[in-house]
Amino acid sequence: MVDIATRVWNHKWKIDPIIRSLIDTDFYKLLMCQSIFRNKPDTEVTFSLINRTTSVPLADLIDEGELREQLDHVRSLSLSRGESTWLRGNTFYGKRQMFRPDFMEWFEGMRLPPYHLERKGDQYELTFEGKWHEVMLWEIPALAILMELRGRAVLDRMDRFELQILYARGMTRVWEKIETLREVDGLGIADFGTRRRHSFLWQDWCVQAMQEGMGSKFTGTSNCLIAMRREMEAIGTNAHELPMVYAALAETDEELFRAPYEVLSDWHDEHEGNLRIILPDTYGTKGFLDNAPDWLAGWTGIRIDSGDPAAAAEVAIDWWKSRGEDPKQKRVIFSDGLDVDKIIALHKQFKGRVLPSFGWGTLLTNDFRGLVPDDALAPFSLVCKAVSANGRPTVKLSDNPNKAMGPQSEIDRYKRVFGVGDQDRIEVEV
Amino acid sequence: MVDIATRVWNHKWKIDPIIRSLIDTDFYKLLMCQSIFRNKPDTEVTFSLINRTTSVPLADLIDEGELREQLDHVRSLSLSRGESTWLRGNTFYGKRQMFRPDFMEWFEGMRLPPYHLERKGDQYELTFEGKWHEVMLWEIPALAILMELRGRAVLDRMDRFELQILYARGMTRVWEKIETLREVDGLGIADFGTRRRHSFLWQDWCVQAMQEGMGSKFTGTSNCLIAMRREMEAIGTNAHELPMVYAALAETDEELFRAPYEVLSDWHDEHEGNLRIILPDTYGTKGFLDNAPDWLAGWTGIRIDSGDPAAAAEVAIDWWKSRGEDPKQKRVIFSDGLDVDKIIALHKQFKGRVLPSFGWGTLLTNDFRGLVPDDALAPFSLVCKAVSANGRPTVKLSDNPNKAMGPQSEIDRYKRVFGVGDQDRIEVEV
Repeated sequence: MVDIATRVWNHKWKIDPIIRSLIDTDFYKLLMCQSIFRNKPDTEVTFSLINRTTSVPLADLIDEGELREQLDHVRSLSLSRGESTWLRGNTFYGKRQMFRPDFMEWFEGMRLPPYHLERKGDQYELTFEGKWHEVMLWEIPALAILMELRGRAVLDRMDRFELQILYARGMTRVWEKIETLREVDGLGIADFGTRRRHSFLWQDWCVQAMQEGMGSKFTGTSNCLIAMRREMEAIGTNAHELPMVYAALAETDEELFRAPYEVLSDWHDEHEGNLRIILPDTYGTKGFLDNAPDWLAGWTGIRIDSGDPAAAAEVAIDWWKSRGEDPKQKRVIFSDGLDVDKIIALHKQFKGRVLPSFGWGTLLTNDFRGLVPDDALAPFSLVCKAVSANGRPTVKLSDNPNKAMGPQSEIDRYKRVFGVGDQDRIEVEV
Repeated sequence: MVDIATRVWNHKWKIDPIIRSLIDTDFYKLLMCQSIFRNKPDTEVTFSLINRTTSVPLADLIDEGELREQLDHVRSLSLSRGESTWLRGNTFYGKRQMFRPDFMEWFEGMRLPPYHLERKGDQYELTFEGKWHEVMLWEIPALAILMELRGRAVLDRMDRFELQILYARGMTRVWEKIETLREVDGLGIADFGTRRRHSFLWQDWCVQAMQEGMGSKFTGTSNCLIAMRREMEAIGTNAHELPMVYAALAETDEELFRAPYEVLSDWHDEHEGNLRIILPDTYGTKGFLDNAPDWLAGWTGIRIDSGDPAAAAEVAIDWWKSRGEDPKQKRVIFSDGLDVDKIIALHKQFKGRVLPSFGWGTLLTNDFRGLVPDDALAPFSLVCKAVSANGRPTVKLSDNPNKAMGPQSEIDRYKRVFGVGDQDRIEVEV
């Protein structure tokens, strides 16, 4: 029997919205949003889309009108009552009332601020300006929308069975990864794949496949909406935008030098336990740890998001030892460009020496490499970053010069202040 | 929106019937049925299930009660008005009113006769007795039911995502075959996979995939129900049961020798054009052709269903030449144990020399080899054959002694009568 009402309803939609909820975003954005809401509520920032894979001509692939419709739709969203209840009532990382009443009250009334969209050659210039804690909530929806619209442009040309086989192949690939990973003793993996996912439905499928296939080795998802619907752990702590904006706000080189530690000091006041995860690479991992205050060595762990992950983990292990800490008790979260082989190699290398865990992103939720002609569905490196704060440009160095961003003069200044020397270039794929 | 009515309706079914229509059968069964209805309406036969793959313990895998429920359900079926209309109104092989009014009137009132089911060790003894034109309609449903129940026994143990991946892998495999085959110039393939299909829905999917993927290189399906629903050609001509029963009815060696030609003489009176396809291998291809009357050389083509297919095609080519016929104008239908490599090799070898075409069966509609532990879904060699006619045993020799059947003394007699010498044994997989 055809459900006539459903069929008619489906055909009434003007668009097929990619983002349908304000919590279809990474959990750490909400944690950081609350932190900024408390500590830096007056900071004005600009976030900007950056397509590192310039060979993907987004403006040729994606119709500007369709992009605007999707972005406009996100601006129409507000937190639903059930979403608010979930955020208020849930236990995150073992803690009740993670989100404070004043923050929740503000979040319930929040709408995303305007965007600025302009075509520049074969790329789009997409920027967001305003209060930091509002603008920063654009990052994940903007990325997810662009990734999915680019995918739709390719899928539009495919026939019905071609589509079914495409997804059959994609599913088989994900499942084969799961079949390999679930054999690895002691593994712990979370889904970090929201921002560069193939689509929402695909991410949701991948998460469910991980849940059935990996059992307790699957530790949760960074996506709040999926975590809520599937009754899973929402996973995530903090990201580069905190030290980048704090650093841009610094008035002097001395303040600049202290800025990354100030971020973590604010975080230390707010969070404990498994949320105390250091993200050390914004201005070079080595120097950051060498100059870190002692209380930071007491934190639960570290997240490694650029450079050679094994080398960075070794740096962290040496640092903990030098501060009298036992690395065996420390969490090391690998989250940069992971796929099965890298996960297994890192797990093997660090199991027993630290507590390794994995935030698996793009190659979990968007591995369509090689499945269509011209590899037109392969994931690519799209980011949406804070590029200025209170009128001053931000800078990111990271442990890989290919991930560095900011004006060259400022990059040079930051390198001097943070004592960053030569770095190995590593190709950025996803 | 959940369609509540559909959900409730689905849960009201006592069983999930495997066969839901009397025309969920091979087209050639209906052609032969009509021929028998006219020419041999009083013949009493016994059909029997034979599992050539004794390593598959059907009685251990399939619950007897479930098997009876499925068989009983088929006995409750009668030709629907739409099915009758389709058979009466359709053009088959370019001919209107292929099925005569007297046959259709009988068919509309027909119910399948009783079955006899008994467990013998780890196998089932399943036999059907009665009028030939009724009993013979059990063949395809009985095979399809046993194949699908065996599959369900395996699928019952699988989780939700395991099932999804199983079908994703199966679909990908079929599609890869299609992607290979559609590149072959001049290829023509029909689906002959009803009897040993994985399931009805799976065959229906394979047929649709062939339709989209192969375009005009897909010439139709032997399954009447799918042909009707998908508006395709129904394909098929005749099978071994005709010469086997005619032979068993022979009173003398001389009559026995003439029996296979008598079958085709009756067929010649009824059909023309593309339905005049010789099936020469029942008692040995070579002898059959050497001793054939000249009018048979004028037929449209030949179907090769056992032995070395290339060798048999060469025999046919030589025979046509010896009778002054042009092999280039002759249709050669290969239908035995085909898969992609064999299809391509035979097409390459015979294209231009004859008009090759292919009836692709089990490895189109049931290639789940290697997809579950212990290969528990691999197809196996199950047949349902006429074993006696008017109390006398039937015999099949074929061009492969592994496909021979009948009492040894009768096999010896047939070999003598038809002058069949040594034959090469070829392993029968599907």
